[in-house]
Amino acid sequence: MRRLRLAMVGGGRGAFIGGVHRMAARLDDRFTLVAGALSADPEKARASGADLGLHPERAYADYAAMIAGERARADGAEVVSIVTPNHAHHAPAKASLEAGLHVICDKPLALTVEEAEDLADVARRTGRVFVLTHNYSGYPMVRQARAMVAAGEIGPVRVVQVEYPQDWLSAPLEATGQKQAEWRVDPSRAGMGGSLGDLGTHAHQILEYVTGLRVEAVLADAQSFVTGRRVDDNAHLLLRLSGGARGMMWTSQVAPGNDNALRLRVYGERGGLEWAQEHPNQLRHAPLGEAPRMLARGVGALSPAAAHATRIPSGHPEGYLEAFAILYRDAAERILALEEGREPDPLCTTTPTVADGLRGMRFVRAAVISSRAGGVWKALDVPT
Amino acid sequence: MRRLRLAMVGGGRGAFIGGVHRMAARLDDRFTLVAGALSADPEKARASGADLGLHPERAYADYAAMIAGERARADGAEVVSIVTPNHAHHAPAKASLEAGLHVICDKPLALTVEEAEDLADVARRTGRVFVLTHNYSGYPMVRQARAMVAAGEIGPVRVVQVEYPQDWLSAPLEATGQKQAEWRVDPSRAGMGGSLGDLGTHAHQILEYVTGLRVEAVLADAQSFVTGRRVDDNAHLLLRLSGGARGMMWTSQVAPGNDNALRLRVYGERGGLEWAQEHPNQLRHAPLGEAPRMLARGVGALSPAAAHATRIPSGHPEGYLEAFAILYRDAAERILALEEGREPDPLCTTTPTVADGLRGMRFVRAAVISSRAGGVWKALDVPT
Amino acid sequence: MRRLRLAMVGGGRGAFIGGVHRMAARLDDRFTLVAGALSADPEKARASGADLGLHPERAYADYAAMIAGERARADGAEVVSIVTPNHAHHAPAKASLEAGLHVICDKPLALTVEEAEDLADVARRTGRVFVLTHNYSGYPMVRQARAMVAAGEIGPVRVVQVEYPQDWLSAPLEATGQKQAEWRVDPSRAGMGGSLGDLGTHAHQILEYVTGLRVEAVLADAQSFVTGRRVDDNAHLLLRLSGGARGMMWTSQVAPGNDNALRLRVYGERGGLEWAQEHPNQLRHAPLGEAPRMLARGVGALSPAAAHATRIPSGHPEGYLEAFAILYRDAAERILALEEGREPDPLCTTTPTVADGLRGMRFVRAAVISSRAGGVWKALDVPT
Amino acid sequence: MRRLRLAMVGGGRGAFIGGVHRMAARLDDRFTLVAGALSADPEKARASGADLGLHPERAYADYAAMIAGERARADGAEVVSIVTPNHAHHAPAKASLEAGLHVICDKPLALTVEEAEDLADVARRTGRVFVLTHNYSGYPMVRQARAMVAAGEIGPVRVVQVEYPQDWLSAPLEATGQKQAEWRVDPSRAGMGGSLGDLGTHAHQILEYVTGLRVEAVLADAQSFVTGRRVDDNAHLLLRLSGGARGMMWTSQVAPGNDNALRLRVYGERGGLEWAQEHPNQLRHAPLGEAPRMLARGVGALSPAAAHATRIPSGHPEGYLEAFAILYRDAAERILALEEGREPDPLCTTTPTVADGLRGMRFVRAAVISSRAGGVWKALDVPT
Repeated sequence: MRRLRLAMVGGGRGAFIGGVHRMAARLDDRFTLVAGALSADPEKARASGADLGLHPERAYADYAAMIAGERARADGAEVVSIVTPNHAHHAPAKASLEAGLHVICDKPLALTVEEAEDLADVARRTGRVFVLTHNYSGYPMVRQARAMVAAGEIGPVRVVQVEYPQDWLSAPLEATGQKQAEWRVDPSRAGMGGSLGDLGTHAHQILEYVTGLRVEAVLADAQSFVTGRRVDDNAHLLLRLSGGARGMMWTSQVAPGNDNALRLRVYGERGGLEWAQEHPNQLRHAPLGEAPRMLARGVGALSPAAAHATRIPSGHPEGYLEAFAILYRDAAERILALEEGREPDPLCTTTPTVADGLRGMRFVRAAVISSRAGGVWKALDVPT
Repeated sequence: MRRLRLAMVGGGRGAFIGGVHRMAARLDDRFTLVAGALSADPEKARASGADLGLHPERAYADYAAMIAGERARADGAEVVSIVTPNHAHHAPAKASLEAGLHVICDKPLALTVEEAEDLADVARRTGRVFVLTHNYSGYPMVRQARAMVAAGEIGPVRVVQVEYPQDWLSAPLEATGQKQAEWRVDPSRAGMGGSLGDLGTHAHQILEYVTGLRVEAVLADAQSFVTGRRVDDNAHLLLRLSGGARGMMWTSQVAPGNDNALRLRVYGERGGLEWAQEHPNQLRHAPLGEAPRMLARGVGALSPAAAHATRIPSGHPEGYLEAFAILYRDAAERILALEEGREPDPLCTTTPTVADGLRGMRFVRAAVISSRAGGVWKALDVPT
Repeated sequence: MRRLRLAMVGGGRGAFIGGVHRMAARLDDRFTLVAGALSADPEKARASGADLGLHPERAYADYAAMIAGERARADGAEVVSIVTPNHAHHAPAKASLEAGLHVICDKPLALTVEEAEDLADVARRTGRVFVLTHNYSGYPMVRQARAMVAAGEIGPVRVVQVEYPQDWLSAPLEATGQKQAEWRVDPSRAGMGGSLGDLGTHAHQILEYVTGLRVEAVLADAQSFVTGRRVDDNAHLLLRLSGGARGMMWTSQVAPGNDNALRLRVYGERGGLEWAQEHPNQLRHAPLGEAPRMLARGVGALSPAAAHATRIPSGHPEGYLEAFAILYRDAAERILALEEGREPDPLCTTTPTVADGLRGMRFVRAAVISSRAGGVWKALDVPT
Repeated sequence: MRRLRLAMVGGGRGAFIGGVHRMAARLDDRFTLVAGALSADPEKARASGADLGLHPERAYADYAAMIAGERARADGAEVVSIVTPNHAHHAPAKASLEAGLHVICDKPLALTVEEAEDLADVARRTGRVFVLTHNYSGYPMVRQARAMVAAGEIGPVRVVQVEYPQDWLSAPLEATGQKQAEWRVDPSRAGMGGSLGDLGTHAHQILEYVTGLRVEAVLADAQSFVTGRRVDDNAHLLLRLSGGARGMMWTSQVAPGNDNALRLRVYGERGGLEWAQEHPNQLRHAPLGEAPRMLARGVGALSPAAAHATRIPSGHPEGYLEAFAILYRDAAERILALEEGREPDPLCTTTPTVADGLRGMRFVRAAVISSRAGGVWKALDVPT
């Protein structure tokens, strides 16, 4: 299978998620990084390109130049990865799509619901592949959970508990000049949600991904525990889901002892499923009235969806990068299928897209509005 | 130390919690069971008394007879344990107090807030010892957590997560004639709360016990997932706590794979504490920025409060009955101190009392009202 | 069911295991403590008797006086619990049996194999009930494991891994005057095995109890890591079991971070079982080729043997004392059945007896001889 | 940093470990696969080369042709990865070294001690870099453990427990034609050790890597539980380590419920360390007398050695492939430093080499001889 030519926006020296995207893109060997607009600082963009072995003329000063430059080449980039902070997703993503490029975009989708709606429109109009890297949906046991719910193995879903606590913002880290902290607590770059935007969108996505349900309404109580912080660093949410299920969500950046403790628990009429991101190779399945089973990646008879996302035998843990890389692998298949005029492998079609990103943005907005109103139910699709 | 003479109301053949109270009373050898009104069915009361080795004339047909009979004896009971369903707490408890007897009462305190208020008044007026068996507060590591929060080891509390899921009512067990299920889903015997009354009062109590904070307001979304059930079997709550802390609570009887999965997590400015009832001998302590420590009963330097509740060396697990028995042991000390006109050992004075029970009843009422109103904040002390 | 009259040898003030036996005897209400020879120090014996509420004339100065005194009474003791250090088991046990009393004896059975053989003879001759408190065999999930192996659920056993590490003797605690440490590292009181005698006998017993196999030969490498210690504080053993199975055993008192980390793992042709004493309510069952199940006390369909040892519902942990108390409960049934001339409930007949204790002593002796010989296979039944 | 040109011997269609090596080589972008002798079957070699995007003329029919072909090119391979079964390591490794190529070789090093000695000689003589992929030593928390032991944080080591159980050969899988099983139980391809060769060499290496000690003597009891199997599928070992420490090792392919359950526990005078491969991002550290800490990759202050092997923040698990890739990254640094005539980054110099492989082969031989002799101590360096 041929390798796709990849360009990257953001991800220069000192960035975090750009390096993750590059490792993810390399792991399964479906992409070659050929170009980048790696930093808003031209000198840093150049140096970062050199670090990565890019040809100097393909280490562009900005995304517009990059798109123009690559369009002009016979061997120009086919796909653009966007790994900038949230406020800098919309413009390069839109420009890329309109230039006929496929897009792999970091989450959350955009700064505002309006931006997200616009991207959804453009993606629809251009017909390009758009993958949003809600990377947790690339874990084999998350796919297993989704397959089991879809197959009715736990019966109709009644209750969902999802939480994503961290502790890295327990103190005012943003005041120390730490770059990751700075932009993530700045509403002009992160959006209206703090923990809600950074963590809540993941929690929302994985909930919908696994259950197949939709969050229809939220009631939120969000706080900024660190003095002076302008976005929430902790949020408590009640959820109403399609089909009558109910849920709770907790997001936090101020819960000492939690690193990336995303956890999803789904309870149906006939069983329960529990998964924790920090030990992702296991999935606890409790059929009602029977002893719980610890399903594990590669052990026994799992679903095709789990097998699809599994590279190595059971007992050899796969981690965050492997899950992330599944999204890249799925994206490659979707892009090639589109180009080749065929249906993609259906196992590659569950990766999150712009539509999931738009729902995520609506979720954050509804939660923030609910919380500001003192805790009232807010439907996700009601205009504000 | 002399053994106190104990009488019991409820707990005859086929009952569950009565046997637990008796084992708890025996474990530390501070009580001798001398009398009982063990069943509303006189024949069963008699047979149950014989099972337990009671003298036939002290196996009474009802609590009133028992109180009268015991008062008439020089060696009459000094303490009454009340282990009946919720609707049958108030009357025997009140009568016992008024007869000068001390009371150890199962939780929740009563059927209604009004009954609870009345009991609180009577207890105050009579000056008798009143212990409410929120047994989880007898676990050594729960006492350790309380001591650590009080000592400021995690800093001011910001966020509390408490949950108590079970699965035993996932199907309509009450329709099969199972006695425990029958009364617990019957509002006339259990009260207005289902999972909220049975589990939520425990969760509320342990939250307040460990943090030293008070639940000031709740916002609840309660459900009855099993068709026809007249009380909630699942409830999601947002909490506002004294001092500005916030919390979430989840109670459920329909979460497959959960037996008695009470779990408390408390996060302060400088650290976090996590405790799970099903593995009660451990307490995870995460000082901010350091590796989490797994504190364990008996290992290293713990608080006097934990040592007080510890009988055997580390690595030999103590369980539910041992925790329950701590409440009986503490009760004995409080009763003897009162009789002897001295101050009780302060380590014995943290056991839950009628005041905790009253707050618990207000908590349930506020939650039910909040949920019925569609999810609105409800202060605990506002008259309805 | 009537309560049996119990006397105790050892267990006075400052002792450890005596208190455990008393709590275990009380928990299920089948025994009344009526007499004791609680200490070799007459004054301490008297004071300890008063602590426990014994009638002064039944707080004897030594076991011989106690046996004589109790025989002289119509309401004299029927059963004797022996809770002294190892070197002081044989004499009171033998005298009790010969006086027609039943015996519940702490482990290991005696100081030497010769003493153990003598006790086995006396027990056989007198026909009295003799229960040896290898308490871990009272855990419900240990009984479940035994039942599953016996039922063939994991197929013929191939491999057994058993370990019992502690850390309390990592430093020379005996040099500080700590009583428990002092006698346990003194060969004249503990016997020839240090960790082998204290922990190895437990490990040996639980292995045989669960698998139904016998340890036929051992090869040991034992060490005394703490300078000057005269018995082993760590030992590594290879085992040959009846039926061709093989095993390993590790005992240690110098493994920092281990409290009472007894763990048993049994692997058969068709499945594996894993159990850990510090989390005793769970039993992991891995049927070959299927997802492992976490069996738990009270959940789903377990064996009658597990149900027999279970008092309270699933999710409410039972611990060390509850397991210990099962041995007392089983002993009571065996004694009453003997007195009543009937067969005991078969579920009560698996408790360890003098024969198990004798095998344990032979195991320790073989291990010590093997190690002293530099590590050679030693059959358990070969005379030395 | 420039990418090294990599060739691969073995790893064609249907192979397992070759794909792992390729993912590991790609992850940190220090290698480009340029050539291969991917299969002994020329047609499969060609097709496998096409799968991987090799230029057809660099998809060689055998390793000799590959070495010749690559030497003839200005852009020829600089490093050879050898991913064939054990019996096919020696010849291509030797030829590669003698052709001036660096070697990254899968473990165990060779079929026999003699082959291993020869490779050690050749590597010494040629001065080429030789990395042996004992991949578990690339895990950050394994490096952390090594650094802690070296820094004296647990004091002098007394006891080491290492085990590596699997279950995949519980039944005679080799009889079904499964390729991985077939060669691993064939002494002519796997060597004299079965579980000892495949798993024991890993266990031996990680033990020596973390403790800094050497296994000086072994006493083994190895079995072939599956009828007709010609190599061991389970082995129990006692170990004597340099400096007076003692150890135990268990390797198994017939322990149902174990996938790749490599676990290392090290106990010193002042603390203990415990690590399990299936949850590799954690390391339990128990300082004597204090609560155990759960160290985690990226949390708090860890060693430079752990930081060196860490790519992404705490709470985002890294797994098997990431650890494997650390060996490739370290190899790249060592090769480049050699070429550039400078000292390599010292953090890259702990990767296993041919010397470790030779010790591993001697370990297996000694264990097999010990077991065949009925279980006797066998020094590792004594000629047989």
